[in-house]
Amino acid sequence: MTTAVAQSSLTDSFVTAFRNHPAGVAVVTADPGDGPVAMTATSVCSVDANPPTVAFSASKNSSSTPALLRSSSVVVHLLSAHQLHLAKLGATSGIDRFADTSLWDRLPTGEVVFREAAAWIRGSIIGTLPAKGATLFMVEGDEIGGHHADPHRDAEPPLVYHSRGWHTLGPTTQIAG
Amino acid sequence: MTTAVAQSSLTDSFVTAFRNHPAGVAVVTADPGDGPVAMTATSVCSVDANPPTVAFSASKNSSSTPALLRSSSVVVHLLSAHQLHLAKLGATSGIDRFADTSLWDRLPTGEVVFREAAAWIRGSIIGTLPAKGATLFMVEGDEIGGHHADPHRDAEPPLVYHSRGWHTLGPTTQIAG
Repeated sequence: MTTAVAQSSLTDSFVTAFRNHPAGVAVVTADPGDGPVAMTATSVCSVDANPPTVAFSASKNSSSTPALLRSSSVVVHLLSAHQLHLAKLGATSGIDRFADTSLWDRLPTGEVVFREAAAWIRGSIIGTLPAKGATLFMVEGDEIGGHHADPHRDAEPPLVYHSRGWHTLGPTTQIAG
Repeated sequence: MTTAVAQSSLTDSFVTAFRNHPAGVAVVTADPGDGPVAMTATSVCSVDANPPTVAFSASKNSSSTPALLRSSSVVVHLLSAHQLHLAKLGATSGIDRFADTSLWDRLPTGEVVFREAAAWIRGSIIGTLPAKGATLFMVEGDEIGGHHADPHRDAEPPLVYHSRGWHTLGPTTQIAG
């Protein structure tokens, strides 16, 4: 009983700490062959640049996770503030996330892509690491698109998730450093 | 030759895409027994809440990575804008990151902690996943401290790394949603 209470308190502290920790926003899509899934994730991070490698975590509570676990490739979409609607789409339960066919397309290799994403990375799942209630995926990028991947184009305002709200950044948010 | 050029272009696109992708900022410390190391990381993410589980990536280019790979426990510090100096400390090469002994302390379990961090998670490394030039670490939290882990206290302004600059968020950065 004491242990359960201590664990619950540890979990509460952890959830609070990460609610106060800002994150970029991504949508991960996959299709193991029986239809596409899309999931909003704030866990996407860059692991390695050469070859391009990203990681993200998928909770067992996410409806997309079983399909991700059966997939060999995914598309990781990095979102700007202009794609807040995609972030919400991939985070809303009980809807058909592919109902609006104007939002998505298939790459020649078959994967589902939201073309308007600021950047997207099509890649192969090269490793997974299981936790109790989630799985960490490692993905090696095979193709990268979107205008945030082009160093010669101006960037869109970024999208940040923090304290259960959506934010953006600009010249006025910069701090000395 | 063509392949090398294509790979280089893929890496450039990837680096550009992540430069445009905002991230929270953390410092990871470890001490495998022969002295502490500290590394600033923008790759820390929450994997699971129960038990509390985080992941982060460490590049082979980081001076701290060999020590991390020999450690069984780490402390992951989640930083607010008030700890920008710690973010810079863990990102500056060629200095003794522990020269200022007023900044750090040892937990009763032996790990090095920057007590002023908005939140810190002491945990055990429960898995690693190697990439070519980096390693992904998974850590289960055993102890959590800092005032961002306390739901009854006001949060400090967050710290965001974006486009090679430091930012914070506030009421004016929130966007509709």
